[in-house]
Amino acid sequence: MSELLEKEQNQETFGWAARDPSGILSPFHFHRRTNGDFDVTIKILYCGICHSDLHVVRNEFGISLYPVVPGHEIVGVVTQVGDKVQKFKLGDKAGVGCFVDSCGKCKHCKENLENYCPKAITTYTTAMFNGDTNKNYGGFSDIYVVNEHFVVQIPDTLPLEGAVPLLCAGITVFSPMKYFGLDKPGMHVGVVGLGGLGHVAVKFAKAFGMKVTVISTSERKREEAIQHLKADHFILSHDSEQMQASVGELDGILDTVSAAHPLMPLVDLLNTDGKLILLSASSLDKPVEVNVVPLLVGRKGIGGSSGGGMKETQEMIDFAAEKEIIADVEVVSMDYVNQAMERLKMGDVHYRFVIDIGNTLHAH
Amino acid sequence: MSELLEKEQNQETFGWAARDPSGILSPFHFHRRTNGDFDVTIKILYCGICHSDLHVVRNEFGISLYPVVPGHEIVGVVTQVGDKVQKFKLGDKAGVGCFVDSCGKCKHCKENLENYCPKAITTYTTAMFNGDTNKNYGGFSDIYVVNEHFVVQIPDTLPLEGAVPLLCAGITVFSPMKYFGLDKPGMHVGVVGLGGLGHVAVKFAKAFGMKVTVISTSERKREEAIQHLKADHFILSHDSEQMQASVGELDGILDTVSAAHPLMPLVDLLNTDGKLILLSASSLDKPVEVNVVPLLVGRKGIGGSSGGGMKETQEMIDFAAEKEIIADVEVVSMDYVNQAMERLKMGDVHYRFVIDIGNTLHAH
Repeated sequence: MSELLEKEQNQETFGWAARDPSGILSPFHFHRRTNGDFDVTIKILYCGICHSDLHVVRNEFGISLYPVVPGHEIVGVVTQVGDKVQKFKLGDKAGVGCFVDSCGKCKHCKENLENYCPKAITTYTTAMFNGDTNKNYGGFSDIYVVNEHFVVQIPDTLPLEGAVPLLCAGITVFSPMKYFGLDKPGMHVGVVGLGGLGHVAVKFAKAFGMKVTVISTSERKREEAIQHLKADHFILSHDSEQMQASVGELDGILDTVSAAHPLMPLVDLLNTDGKLILLSASSLDKPVEVNVVPLLVGRKGIGGSSGGGMKETQEMIDFAAEKEIIADVEVVSMDYVNQAMERLKMGDVHYRFVIDIGNTLHAH
Repeated sequence: MSELLEKEQNQETFGWAARDPSGILSPFHFHRRTNGDFDVTIKILYCGICHSDLHVVRNEFGISLYPVVPGHEIVGVVTQVGDKVQKFKLGDKAGVGCFVDSCGKCKHCKENLENYCPKAITTYTTAMFNGDTNKNYGGFSDIYVVNEHFVVQIPDTLPLEGAVPLLCAGITVFSPMKYFGLDKPGMHVGVVGLGGLGHVAVKFAKAFGMKVTVISTSERKREEAIQHLKADHFILSHDSEQMQASVGELDGILDTVSAAHPLMPLVDLLNTDGKLILLSASSLDKPVEVNVVPLLVGRKGIGGSSGGGMKETQEMIDFAAEKEIIADVEVVSMDYVNQAMERLKMGDVHYRFVIDIGNTLHAH
């Protein structure tokens, strides 16, 4: 149990929780901790719905602890500041993403990579992959209490509802572009899948000055990719002629698709030294097949990435403000959340649901 | 057909060739081209036997063109120099590795990565993976004619027979250490497989000041790894306790094993940002299974590498001379080559056969 979570839980909080693997959400009263010296309390205004929220409320990773209050794309206003808080004052716009604590001592924490700290605590329920079982409640609720280190400042110029998905989807695509060097003008990158992650990836890639090819299973995404998102090229992934025509063209690929899919046709699209970066885990993580020879003869690589650290998340938000990048969102009311979850499962959203917590979450 | 190969073939040459997929080698008379303006002719003194030579003489890649004169680890003395040759003079020690020509115009050639040029011509028979069918004869022969650009200078301090395997095995491990940043003092790298590539990888890794763990299927390699090669640690790969004890310890792994083997237990040995680099293709390239989640949560990668460019090959040889790195070799006579091939297939060599061409190849 994290020290910070051990504090007295005395702030009344109201949210919506799933109680079992049906995933159906309903009103839920609970408490958050006292605002500590290094903490801020945030009145939540908007919270995004990420695909992993859907996995967790339905226990599709097998590690959910009910009741689950999901939500890890949080934007709101600071309403309390601890005595030792330095970055925030009352009334500041603030954002919280995928995790809210880490050990602060390990190599990763010291390198501003809190997201890879083995003791990082995710924004709600369990830390998803490290076996930790800390109980915590997410952003489908009226307030959040968190150490200021894990809060980013939201520039005034950034529309709040469009900024919300940047806290998870944004940093998830931005961080690997930086780390793997896929951020140079003139490079040619592929984006596989045009959903919550994918559409933001296209926007960041264009803002970096890169040529972007969208690769999708759905022909109806073509116009959307080219006309609306300003991608340069579109490939229908199951059309072998289109795939063949682009063999060896890409410097890197950001693969945002969580459903199982073959990787080697994507590797074939890479030029020498190209990297296929996987950003989304399927709920089951069935193994995928990889051939070694194409990796050797083209010095290619297949890698993964998972979010980003707090310093980089702030850089991403500042870059987004400068380049006027926001996610395309459909704002919904709190009591629409179960329908939204169903529609998300069907892929029926352009591109991210954001719950208008501030105006539509009413304690019953 | 390469321009350079189209020249008149008027230099009488004698070597040993395989005539069919039995792979059995026997004496063979042929011609090499006239020494051109940019060419040197090398009197071959030593030629190594690489595992891929075994694959090719037996047509295990399915692309051999008989007769095959194998051999792509060549060291000898310059006996002719073209009018425009700048790097060499008569009597110089010279080495030739895996390829002997490239287009010179593509992005890879301009970046000194001739090994990734789609038109690179390998030292004998076909270019192995690019579909090219140029006919060429390798180093199991008395002379070689080659553009000086594809020849490295062998420092006088480097014993020739021990330097021979560096031309292939050496650059194959050195280049990925450099490219993937696995060359920093204090890093901890794994070397999978202790054969021709692996034993040289340990030597370079130690010369870079890194901690080295050898991972092998054979307990009898333990003493060899620790005592003789000065590795720091040894793991028997099928001992799950030993594997478990080293989870998350390695910054990178150089995997030199060509036989099919599971990759995920190796990925588990990597720390965050760790890279598993595959250096050896199996003859069949059956797909291997990869799980996505471990790549994501540790920002890990699986990549490949294939040799190195000429500039880097010279750097590798110079570094080897400075650090007194040579391969451990068993020098054999030309007429022992068929037994050597059989023993190589059984893994019965410490660690590389080198044929004493200069003293034992006699025209019949």
